[in-house]
Amino acid sequence: MTVRVGINGYGTIGKRVACAVKAQDDMEIVGVTKTRPSYEARLAEMEKFPLYTASEDQISSFEKEGIATKGSLKDLLKEADIIVDCTPGGVGEHYRKMYEEAGVKAIFQGGEDHGLAGISFNAYANYSEAWGADFARVVSCNTTGLVRTLFPIDHAYGIESVAATIVRRGADPADIKGSALNAIEPSLKLPTHHGPDVQTIMPWLNITTMVVKVPTTLMHVHCITINLKKQAKEQDILGVWDSAPRVRFVNGKYGIKNTAQIMEYAKDLDRRRGDFMEIAVWQDGIKVRGNTLFYYQAVHQESDVVPENIDCIRSMMRLESDGMKSIQKTNSSLGISK
Amino acid sequence: MTVRVGINGYGTIGKRVACAVKAQDDMEIVGVTKTRPSYEARLAEMEKFPLYTASEDQISSFEKEGIATKGSLKDLLKEADIIVDCTPGGVGEHYRKMYEEAGVKAIFQGGEDHGLAGISFNAYANYSEAWGADFARVVSCNTTGLVRTLFPIDHAYGIESVAATIVRRGADPADIKGSALNAIEPSLKLPTHHGPDVQTIMPWLNITTMVVKVPTTLMHVHCITINLKKQAKEQDILGVWDSAPRVRFVNGKYGIKNTAQIMEYAKDLDRRRGDFMEIAVWQDGIKVRGNTLFYYQAVHQESDVVPENIDCIRSMMRLESDGMKSIQKTNSSLGISK
Amino acid sequence: MTVRVGINGYGTIGKRVACAVKAQDDMEIVGVTKTRPSYEARLAEMEKFPLYTASEDQISSFEKEGIATKGSLKDLLKEADIIVDCTPGGVGEHYRKMYEEAGVKAIFQGGEDHGLAGISFNAYANYSEAWGADFARVVSCNTTGLVRTLFPIDHAYGIESVAATIVRRGADPADIKGSALNAIEPSLKLPTHHGPDVQTIMPWLNITTMVVKVPTTLMHVHCITINLKKQAKEQDILGVWDSAPRVRFVNGKYGIKNTAQIMEYAKDLDRRRGDFMEIAVWQDGIKVRGNTLFYYQAVHQESDVVPENIDCIRSMMRLESDGMKSIQKTNSSLGISK
Amino acid sequence: MTVRVGINGYGTIGKRVACAVKAQDDMEIVGVTKTRPSYEARLAEMEKFPLYTASEDQISSFEKEGIATKGSLKDLLKEADIIVDCTPGGVGEHYRKMYEEAGVKAIFQGGEDHGLAGISFNAYANYSEAWGADFARVVSCNTTGLVRTLFPIDHAYGIESVAATIVRRGADPADIKGSALNAIEPSLKLPTHHGPDVQTIMPWLNITTMVVKVPTTLMHVHCITINLKKQAKEQDILGVWDSAPRVRFVNGKYGIKNTAQIMEYAKDLDRRRGDFMEIAVWQDGIKVRGNTLFYYQAVHQESDVVPENIDCIRSMMRLESDGMKSIQKTNSSLGISK
Repeated sequence: MTVRVGINGYGTIGKRVACAVKAQDDMEIVGVTKTRPSYEARLAEMEKFPLYTASEDQISSFEKEGIATKGSLKDLLKEADIIVDCTPGGVGEHYRKMYEEAGVKAIFQGGEDHGLAGISFNAYANYSEAWGADFARVVSCNTTGLVRTLFPIDHAYGIESVAATIVRRGADPADIKGSALNAIEPSLKLPTHHGPDVQTIMPWLNITTMVVKVPTTLMHVHCITINLKKQAKEQDILGVWDSAPRVRFVNGKYGIKNTAQIMEYAKDLDRRRGDFMEIAVWQDGIKVRGNTLFYYQAVHQESDVVPENIDCIRSMMRLESDGMKSIQKTNSSLGISK
Repeated sequence: MTVRVGINGYGTIGKRVACAVKAQDDMEIVGVTKTRPSYEARLAEMEKFPLYTASEDQISSFEKEGIATKGSLKDLLKEADIIVDCTPGGVGEHYRKMYEEAGVKAIFQGGEDHGLAGISFNAYANYSEAWGADFARVVSCNTTGLVRTLFPIDHAYGIESVAATIVRRGADPADIKGSALNAIEPSLKLPTHHGPDVQTIMPWLNITTMVVKVPTTLMHVHCITINLKKQAKEQDILGVWDSAPRVRFVNGKYGIKNTAQIMEYAKDLDRRRGDFMEIAVWQDGIKVRGNTLFYYQAVHQESDVVPENIDCIRSMMRLESDGMKSIQKTNSSLGISK
Repeated sequence: MTVRVGINGYGTIGKRVACAVKAQDDMEIVGVTKTRPSYEARLAEMEKFPLYTASEDQISSFEKEGIATKGSLKDLLKEADIIVDCTPGGVGEHYRKMYEEAGVKAIFQGGEDHGLAGISFNAYANYSEAWGADFARVVSCNTTGLVRTLFPIDHAYGIESVAATIVRRGADPADIKGSALNAIEPSLKLPTHHGPDVQTIMPWLNITTMVVKVPTTLMHVHCITINLKKQAKEQDILGVWDSAPRVRFVNGKYGIKNTAQIMEYAKDLDRRRGDFMEIAVWQDGIKVRGNTLFYYQAVHQESDVVPENIDCIRSMMRLESDGMKSIQKTNSSLGISK
Repeated sequence: MTVRVGINGYGTIGKRVACAVKAQDDMEIVGVTKTRPSYEARLAEMEKFPLYTASEDQISSFEKEGIATKGSLKDLLKEADIIVDCTPGGVGEHYRKMYEEAGVKAIFQGGEDHGLAGISFNAYANYSEAWGADFARVVSCNTTGLVRTLFPIDHAYGIESVAATIVRRGADPADIKGSALNAIEPSLKLPTHHGPDVQTIMPWLNITTMVVKVPTTLMHVHCITINLKKQAKEQDILGVWDSAPRVRFVNGKYGIKNTAQIMEYAKDLDRRRGDFMEIAVWQDGIKVRGNTLFYYQAVHQESDVVPENIDCIRSMMRLESDGMKSIQKTNSSLGISK
């Protein structure tokens, strides 16, 4: 029998997680929620995802537009074993009690605090921590990106300290606000919350972060400086990532010099929605000097957490006890090579 | 037997036409050319497209990167019945003689002059004009966009005159130049060449155009004013486009208010590369005042000409005599609804 | 004795009008208002403009930051003969009664409806209409731009009809919202309100407008098509504008091809704040075909209305009965050549 | 007698240095060069700067446009005591011999290699090094920015090591190329040349840099992490910069949160061209943790080197032996408070 998954919030992340669930053979979508009868509500129909509203009073606005719904979230909770909460950051908190009372497990996204779920999740780093849990949180796109490359390096060579500058995209492609059109804006409160967020997965890690927001929509870029405990050469480090899941090399010398070119590459690879779910590391943008390692990576903010959500469902629902097997199953269903 | 198609120039347009050819049952790709061993050369391999260089002296640079080629364009010409020339604007002229001497038909793109081929092509407006021809030119993305909506309106109500302002995207998404980062730039030479280019398909049409370039990468937008010969209401006009091929409505009231949201929609529709091959007309952005019709449309510069190239191959290779049948066959293979 | 002017709303427009008033010999600034103790409040001090808050309850937040105020708007109204209301669009309505009760004249900006003041103002077109009036409205930046070039052409050759496409900047340079970062967005409600707004100054004019918003901050660009009543050549039209106030030619062939280059030019001209208060018309971007005239112009949204406000004060305060003399006086004080 | 200064290359930097020289009482502009008769050539006339072409064969193209010149660079060299070479990066090398043969001193800009002049200059850090020299190089905008804040900190507390991420503006405001419209692009060759460039001024400093280019035009932002030799509190560090020349605080809490808002502030301050010649440090964007200091600063790439060029002239021409006195003289003439 397949696990019945509901998506609360069929937006940027929600629609991607829903399609990823659909691509699995051990889980299925039993419903998705929308708050307004936008075109995305009609797309749910195209995907054959049963449509629910977030609250009961929204149903009539859907009816007015001729969009049939199966009820509201309250009804969806009766159909689902687990909810993936993809509501906007800070909103998940409001729903936690509702999930609990309905006896339905739930996964929150990185916009929520660690404390809401008590468990923060990354498939490679701590798959088993979510085993059978009622609540877990898949960490944010940036934290997922940092953990994907830091965890294997820490394992192989030991990390003394990390200083990372996160150059954030100003807004998602179709968003109307979030960034001045022509400005760079630093996050003045230092150090930013990203370091402590990585520590919800790797509590022993000495990491500090600075952040600037820039007027682009495609990806975040991380400029990372690591002091290593053991010496390593560039080739050693690249070798570690070559074996790590969901890290993919790109090369400036083959014409992939910036985030727009990574996104072009993703379209060429025929990924659903042109998503790039791996962390892109520039193979020709790495340097070791003494014990210090420098490298650049890019994070597709809309999609890198999607496979993590699938693995998190498997761990919480006890579908697969071996994390690496879950990762491989997810990857192979989504066209991720490793 | 299927028609053997070669692509000269596996770039933004070339790779899309190649994938579209691959999706047909009456034609196949026998080779694509690249000038440099970039990542796109490797992608051709992924697609199982035989790889050729543009000129013989480029072969060694591919060998150095460990990329095998089948030879150069000269060799490809021996394998192909027809070449789709997707080289940069103005370069096609250089190759025309080579195609002619090899006895291979060729389609040029809108960056070339009408005179190079003598026939300018749009599947709905003049499919039969390319019948059996040795050379034809698929008009540019903007001209294709204008013809798609003007031709059916002219047929139904008659057009006295058209004034269109074309708001151009500054550069394609992964391009490094073409536009200042924060500026609007008019095309000062008036009227611009777009009117005469539409007249290569609709020579009787009274049309003038103005153009500004703006710092965005996703789509062009046309602001069109038509003086109609016969009176029509908004609903009449929408009805005409509803029956016309490759015109698709979008709605601001359902959340598709700008070009970024159209591109998001295209990703959701699961089109290859997130392309939107139809012309997007805003259903709630149209007005008739007296005999004057105002409307907005958006053109995906990277892809709207792709299905036109397929139909053009069919007409030139005498694969299908009925233009509407070719259009439907192409559409259905590419996920275009009408 | 000089006229005592108060500025309600010391923001983008307010601070510019204040500096322009300061440059006149027949008027002076008696106070400006701010709602928050931002850096602009401190700049008012630097300019020696007495500082007031908008409402009484805001005074304490200024005191907390150590910024002294002279009281609130209520107090300023006792000191002023006339208020220039530069509050955000739609807010002026709220203050009208307060001005009236205090017996203080007021000028509103283009974000307010014509009806609020009953008189819409452009110095060249209808200076005398505001003579001695209690309330008037200086029309918006775009309307000012259209009237500056249309009014003299209509006078010289007669305008049958105008169709203009307005390519709007997405947001002012330092604004945080207003536009998607990478999108073109049409104003779907057609025709847009800009035509009727021009008609508040030129009620006889047959004008329709379409509008798209683009991701840039510097200037609006207008693409204008006019059907003329009498024939004219390009040189005739340029001659008309050469004699019209506050229209200035720029040339692509001398390196001013886009709005960023106009702004660079304005900086080089040593205008206060790099403002370009004239309407910039491309001298090499004009064409007459039969009776139809095409041209491009650019509008500096932050400043073109500033000299109009000065002239409007003069007309309302009966400082100068001859409009052209007021225009010249204002121009010469602000470095505008004609 | 005043020192006679020539500017080779009246462009972005050249025109600013020329205006700054004009504002001094101990030097004057005897000529500026242009290669093309663009609008900037006419602006030189407006400023009363004698105009020369770069080479003799360019004179006729100026004559065609009716712009009189005084001859070419060869002629200017007869009039000048010192040339400020503001030609594009890498071009200065070509002119060095010509200056030398004419017996004229020359200052190069940061786009040239240190070796070309042998002396790299920053007024606060090493004013006396250029004393009487024939050639010197004012370091680049980014290097100037780093030295301005690092040098005083190193002096006060000692710097163990610095890691800086430079977030570069993609192009200057009126440039047509240099950056993709919607992308972040890292400098893959690590560490970048900026560290060694700082070491031309502070050879003892242990500094490494990473760089990303982003689609904005206004300023560069530096995210800086310093390991200090001696403990210091945030207030101590701010106190050091408060005493250092050409460092100016901005505050997010007063509404200056990003680079666009700094540029708005500069316009409000009534600086020529809206320039911000100081390094802007966010007073509320600083943190000390243990011995590690984190802070953000912004660099106006078009102007921060301008006062340095003036001081460099004074040192090379032996006009003032005390660096601090030269700095104060330059500052006071240009409206820089300290």
